[in-house]
Amino acid sequence: MRQSRTFIPTLRESPADAEIASHRLLVRAGYLRKVASGIYEFLPLGTRVVQRISRIIREEMNAAGAQEVMLPIMQPRELWEESGRWAKYGPEMMRLKDRAGRDFGLGPTHEEVITDLVRNNVSSYRDLPLNLYQIGTKFRDEVRPRFGLLRAREFLMKDAYSFDRDEEGMRLSYKAMYEAYGRIFTRCGCTWRAVEAATGLIGGDISHEFMVPAEVGEDHIALCDSCSYSANLELAGYRRTETPRGEGKAMERVSTPGMRTIEEVSGYLGMEPRRMVKCLMYLVEGKPVAVLVPGDREANEVKLARVLGTDEFRLFNESDWKEHPDYLQGFVGPVGLDSAEIIADESLRGAGGLACGANERDVHLVHVEEGRDFRPHSFADLTSARTGDPCPRCGEPMRVEAGIEVGQVFQLGLKYSEAMRCYYHDENGEVRPMYMGCYGIGVTRLMAAVVEQHHDERGIIWPLSVAPAFLHILALDYQREGRRKAAEDLYRECLEKGWEVLLDDREESAGVKFADADLLGIPFRAVIGRGYDEDGTLELQERATGQRARLTRENLFRRLEEARESFRDLAERGDM
Amino acid sequence: MRQSRTFIPTLRESPADAEIASHRLLVRAGYLRKVASGIYEFLPLGTRVVQRISRIIREEMNAAGAQEVMLPIMQPRELWEESGRWAKYGPEMMRLKDRAGRDFGLGPTHEEVITDLVRNNVSSYRDLPLNLYQIGTKFRDEVRPRFGLLRAREFLMKDAYSFDRDEEGMRLSYKAMYEAYGRIFTRCGCTWRAVEAATGLIGGDISHEFMVPAEVGEDHIALCDSCSYSANLELAGYRRTETPRGEGKAMERVSTPGMRTIEEVSGYLGMEPRRMVKCLMYLVEGKPVAVLVPGDREANEVKLARVLGTDEFRLFNESDWKEHPDYLQGFVGPVGLDSAEIIADESLRGAGGLACGANERDVHLVHVEEGRDFRPHSFADLTSARTGDPCPRCGEPMRVEAGIEVGQVFQLGLKYSEAMRCYYHDENGEVRPMYMGCYGIGVTRLMAAVVEQHHDERGIIWPLSVAPAFLHILALDYQREGRRKAAEDLYRECLEKGWEVLLDDREESAGVKFADADLLGIPFRAVIGRGYDEDGTLELQERATGQRARLTRENLFRRLEEARESFRDLAERGDM
Repeated sequence: MRQSRTFIPTLRESPADAEIASHRLLVRAGYLRKVASGIYEFLPLGTRVVQRISRIIREEMNAAGAQEVMLPIMQPRELWEESGRWAKYGPEMMRLKDRAGRDFGLGPTHEEVITDLVRNNVSSYRDLPLNLYQIGTKFRDEVRPRFGLLRAREFLMKDAYSFDRDEEGMRLSYKAMYEAYGRIFTRCGCTWRAVEAATGLIGGDISHEFMVPAEVGEDHIALCDSCSYSANLELAGYRRTETPRGEGKAMERVSTPGMRTIEEVSGYLGMEPRRMVKCLMYLVEGKPVAVLVPGDREANEVKLARVLGTDEFRLFNESDWKEHPDYLQGFVGPVGLDSAEIIADESLRGAGGLACGANERDVHLVHVEEGRDFRPHSFADLTSARTGDPCPRCGEPMRVEAGIEVGQVFQLGLKYSEAMRCYYHDENGEVRPMYMGCYGIGVTRLMAAVVEQHHDERGIIWPLSVAPAFLHILALDYQREGRRKAAEDLYRECLEKGWEVLLDDREESAGVKFADADLLGIPFRAVIGRGYDEDGTLELQERATGQRARLTRENLFRRLEEARESFRDLAERGDM
Repeated sequence: MRQSRTFIPTLRESPADAEIASHRLLVRAGYLRKVASGIYEFLPLGTRVVQRISRIIREEMNAAGAQEVMLPIMQPRELWEESGRWAKYGPEMMRLKDRAGRDFGLGPTHEEVITDLVRNNVSSYRDLPLNLYQIGTKFRDEVRPRFGLLRAREFLMKDAYSFDRDEEGMRLSYKAMYEAYGRIFTRCGCTWRAVEAATGLIGGDISHEFMVPAEVGEDHIALCDSCSYSANLELAGYRRTETPRGEGKAMERVSTPGMRTIEEVSGYLGMEPRRMVKCLMYLVEGKPVAVLVPGDREANEVKLARVLGTDEFRLFNESDWKEHPDYLQGFVGPVGLDSAEIIADESLRGAGGLACGANERDVHLVHVEEGRDFRPHSFADLTSARTGDPCPRCGEPMRVEAGIEVGQVFQLGLKYSEAMRCYYHDENGEVRPMYMGCYGIGVTRLMAAVVEQHHDERGIIWPLSVAPAFLHILALDYQREGRRKAAEDLYRECLEKGWEVLLDDREESAGVKFADADLLGIPFRAVIGRGYDEDGTLELQERATGQRARLTRENLFRRLEEARESFRDLAERGDM
């Protein structure tokens, strides 16, 4: 590629809406442009990176026995009615009607389509296991698209679906995908963690997310360095060791005029927030439910959904408070609250010395004890772990880390195959449902995650495996005949070797060329400048380390060959 | 690929809705399945063919200096308002609203998005010419999707867009694409023709379509074998040499009770249909216009649109006839028809001995002469050529042939750049609009076109360049130890050479294996059967020619290497 003829519109300024490094740098370096909120176009260098990542994914998926297919973006409503997800998916699914008035969804995921394909075309145990994947465009109408490629509305995804005879087969397919995922993220140059995860709208019982640790990540993971427990904070457990105890004092009423928040009341009473009982009123399938958590924690709604066994709940809104005047907003408490089911976080089991609302305007109760003054209908894990909380397995303190979810794998079990009658005949001719798994990688999100882990203040630092080019040739004062010829010769020689190189053949100043090269982030750089005039040497620079070496042409090629060799070895071993 | 583990669900029966060979065979051979009307999924072998075609396209586009990008499917209405196409595109564009109520179209084509990208990022003559392309999913809500991949609603397309400083530059870009297209179709194994074409909803002045001749094609081309003139029938000209002449007789009224069609009247009067004047009433932008064509020809509405300078016209419908009672349906004629503009086909200039409606119920006129009895306001080319009509260039008889349009190239000129203000600064700092071109290839349609040109009654016959595999290894009676080992050894050896091979390792009868192999259409086949038991030879079969040869392993490899070599040579020369 000649830089003078390649469409790489670099920018000095960051786009106004770019809050994070990957978004900022990919736009500034001319890899990416925004078309509309959450909708992007990939320019030539961006397209190359996507293709290199896709190639790594294809290699690992094929090696793991998955077969590539191409499924449509437009999916008929009827299939989604069969799984029950047409209604359940809600406004996150983009929908349209065709000219005949038929409903379609733009695939946010492809379980229905693939299950329909397999049920119609596979009927014998001999054709199982089967694992089909695609790399294609997906759509999710995010409430708040942001962070560039991290939360886009149109994005590229690799999704795979496995079909097995039984649960054991499903576990083997899952394991193969899990391992392929690790190799993919490693080869893309990411450090990553696989953590236990919630299954959400996809469903199934067991799931892992692949997280790329990054400060800007919207997911949070609880990690134990002692026993290596790790899980998405949405479902990470922790041991309750901070349960407050009482001193046996009798419960007392306290006037708290106009004080409705934990902060106000705990400040006024001079009590630690963890001794306050936060009583959250939820409407669960139309009925009021009181959820109790310690005043210094929030309710974790993913955990709550599991406990309630439904997604259909919400915190009381204005009209709910009006419809249920028994519950006094700001003064609700568990004592004497007979009309609602009460669920409490584990940390309140046997707790004492508590304060809570008195279900009376401007009044709170103190010296409250669970078991004596109120008794929840049930206890459950309803709050999220924090750094320092004890690990649920070994009890050692955990830490919480932000990460970008780049992939997720699910054991779906029979969820779709039973709903959609995806059956096969076993060796004895008996009809059985297939055990399914599904496996996603956010391809364009992974590209952003790589940048989050590989950049500095000057620009991107691509890992060799996904870089848009291997070598960037910079001739300073390009118009000088000797230097230009040296650059052109080097360029031609690299092309003959089949290397991807970018030649900066623009008539720009050295400052502009170096700044753009730093921004673009190509791993190696060959600079033809003063050294060349002096003794014919070139300067080899490494973007990641900043290392520089003045080398003869022969030695430069030797070094670069070595770099490619060691990289190739790593790729074959799956380490890179 | 081991056939036992590859998802190739072949069918004995053709799908009920498959009217043409490519649709029938691609489904039967397990390349393709239908999800909904005009919406398909590509199974593993189908995906491979699409990828091989895409690769040829990428190679030729890159070689011609185009740069690959990825543009979004969802396009905001605002961009399409700027070009005026939001209203103009009509129901063929799939549209949706996002959760905030904003309008989007699913890109049927990307002129607006790319023009927006370029106007925002290119400002200097130094950055031109620029040619950007993508291979991506497109959507068109066809009135009547059919013929499998030939007229689908969701399909894969390669679209490129060129930006130049001036008209001359645009012509050069156009020429480079035109030539690349020829190489692409040839390399995909197609015979093709480039013909002059209409520009339709895309716009611009000059356009060529690339046609793959095939009986099932929905397009028709007029061809002159003498001077090699060729054009889409939509706009192909022809010389008028059959104009009927009169004998100077006076015009006469004839009673034609209840006869309204050309057939009825010409039969009753004993006159050739070409002497009947067909008087078609159109409503053009709200006003009636009479279009006169010879009774044995139809009006060509693409030509009519050019002449009228608008797309807003239609043949009178029931309510139009009611609103204009002056015009008597079935008896309209040009004589005395003062209230409408009259446009006549060239073949009626100076014609005589004609018959036409008398604008009076149950009456026609005979011995009518143009110029004496009626005088159209203008003459134009309004009818389509037929086989035998004289070439507009050399006058020799032409023939009309059906073809599949697999690509089209357009000189857009300033249509989009002026509407959307896509300007650049020239060497003197003056602001000028860019000259654009656009260039499309229907990738999945091309796959079907290849099959239309390469099949027989038993199945597909893939050209080497796009085949899902190079060699199909068939061991008959696979369970026989010697044969199985020979097949496995051959398979391994091919894989080591980096060849794409399919090993039929299923325990099926020879009949089933041969029938499936014919259906799948892999170019070469190595059969391990009786010959192997006798003297260790294998049978090499060529799918296209049916040629068979008993060869030793060494000779088999030699032959295959030769085939690959000659194929590679052709690819480099652009002949294949």
